[in-house]
Amino acid sequence: MLACVLEENGPSLKEIARPEPLADEALVRVRLAGICATDLELIRGYMNFRGVLGHEFVGEVAGPEAHPLLGRRVVGEINCGCGSCAWCARGMERHCPGRSVLGILDRHGVFAEYTCLPSRNLHPVSDAVEDEAAVFCEPLAACFEVIEQFPEIVEREVLVIGDGRLGLLQARVLRAAGARVGLLGRHREKMALLAPYEIPAWSEPAQAACSGGEKWPVVIEATGAAEGFSLAVSKTKPRGVVVLKSTVASEARLNLSSVVVDEITVLGSRCGPFEPAIQALETGAVRTSLMIHGRYSLQNAPEALEKAREKGIIKVLLRP
Amino acid sequence: MLACVLEENGPSLKEIARPEPLADEALVRVRLAGICATDLELIRGYMNFRGVLGHEFVGEVAGPEAHPLLGRRVVGEINCGCGSCAWCARGMERHCPGRSVLGILDRHGVFAEYTCLPSRNLHPVSDAVEDEAAVFCEPLAACFEVIEQFPEIVEREVLVIGDGRLGLLQARVLRAAGARVGLLGRHREKMALLAPYEIPAWSEPAQAACSGGEKWPVVIEATGAAEGFSLAVSKTKPRGVVVLKSTVASEARLNLSSVVVDEITVLGSRCGPFEPAIQALETGAVRTSLMIHGRYSLQNAPEALEKAREKGIIKVLLRP
Repeated sequence: MLACVLEENGPSLKEIARPEPLADEALVRVRLAGICATDLELIRGYMNFRGVLGHEFVGEVAGPEAHPLLGRRVVGEINCGCGSCAWCARGMERHCPGRSVLGILDRHGVFAEYTCLPSRNLHPVSDAVEDEAAVFCEPLAACFEVIEQFPEIVEREVLVIGDGRLGLLQARVLRAAGARVGLLGRHREKMALLAPYEIPAWSEPAQAACSGGEKWPVVIEATGAAEGFSLAVSKTKPRGVVVLKSTVASEARLNLSSVVVDEITVLGSRCGPFEPAIQALETGAVRTSLMIHGRYSLQNAPEALEKAREKGIIKVLLRP
Repeated sequence: MLACVLEENGPSLKEIARPEPLADEALVRVRLAGICATDLELIRGYMNFRGVLGHEFVGEVAGPEAHPLLGRRVVGEINCGCGSCAWCARGMERHCPGRSVLGILDRHGVFAEYTCLPSRNLHPVSDAVEDEAAVFCEPLAACFEVIEQFPEIVEREVLVIGDGRLGLLQARVLRAAGARVGLLGRHREKMALLAPYEIPAWSEPAQAACSGGEKWPVVIEATGAAEGFSLAVSKTKPRGVVVLKSTVASEARLNLSSVVVDEITVLGSRCGPFEPAIQALETGAVRTSLMIHGRYSLQNAPEALEKAREKGIIKVLLRP
């Protein structure tokens, strides 16, 4: 089968063997995949990953023949726990120290015709959610993770920094949940997507002000850049919370003394629950169509990755 | 009066005018002062401070004549709020955006014969606490701040990183409060001070293990070095907490992706409540005498500051 494989010299298209599902796994035919900023970071060296790239997808269960979801359209959680440690026993496969992660750590990803995932990772998707929405399920779940970790956030004033896919989805998810949300970004055309949702957006830090002044009780760092952290801290009130969503390969020169002096809480936040994400797509609480800036066939994966790297581009999709 | 003043070219001894207390302030004759790592950071450029150094002290109220504490031995909180903002109204002068801070920000400190502080900042000390213990009150209060911010910590296993004064005091405070505490340090003679308190100490990160493995649910960063943060994160379990206590002038190259991937909470923590600190000194729950490695008269402040900078030195005191 055709796959986009990351090796030492970068990503390239290859013909590789179709994967064979293990006993507890399903074979999934990839219908549509999304390129994530994390894929671009992996190419830059993050996690030192080698293998088939990609972790955002919607697919169809293609095997084994007796699989209860055979033929069903599914999305999938990307963390695959060992199934036997204390983390897995608590349903926290996402933090299993022996986990593999789809297209990120010790497991081939979804920029391919087929992929394999443990059956327990799969969630069926109803016909109400078309492929081009369902493919956003994984990043959308990551936005709901913030609410799971920090439920009080829905009663706060929250500044989201970053107008990429993650920042835009995060702003919408929190607004839909009841939080008063503003966004600090760089691209007028991306921020315009927030206008229907009563989410004010600014491109100048000095203009991004909440009711209590120019600093916010909660700031979400979703810039995807190592330097975003310092900006986030500078916009956070004393005793406030910075939620860190960006995972980046590079270091930045940081001074953490403001975190100490202002007694700020920094909350790392990664993958999240799929159920509320699927529901938000089903009900239309979160709409994604205007975020798609490119559709490529898998054969053109290198061009698609180039496109995803361009400034102003939100989401690029790959169809095997 | 004699004072140790930080100017552009570094600290030096000067004759300056005795300070005049404002309406809500007391004049305090400094009996004994302590040199803090923060003083050394201020000399390196932290906060860009200019003025009389020093914020750890025990003194005697010397004016005005009608002051209710006249002649009483006192210690003092270092943050002086504006008294009229929302923070001050909530008793959170420590976070007042218009605050001055004794010997750190817009207010002369205590490496002098006299200092001034708002009367509400002063706490009388009983005769049961001698000067050489009372002078530890301010850093000890900072250790109790961790419990105030994060009460569940006393039921956790906690690794303190750093065997300086702050790390040693923090370990003792948490142990006395019931937490299971270990310490990761560098200096055998400093770590030996913990032996009577059932606090195991290690000098190799790989040896510092808790009951659940080599990573800890809670890690307190008290190294006083910008690089301590990465070590602290590397010793913290997924979903664990890193408490940041060090304020340093310098930046470090940091990669925050582990904070995101492991969903770690980083809790900045600064100054704390004086009441439990005074009580711990009164009851002897925390003893400080073996931590004193130098006693100098104010006239020898430059030598004392040099001494405080030496490796292996915990606390150096200055007597005006």
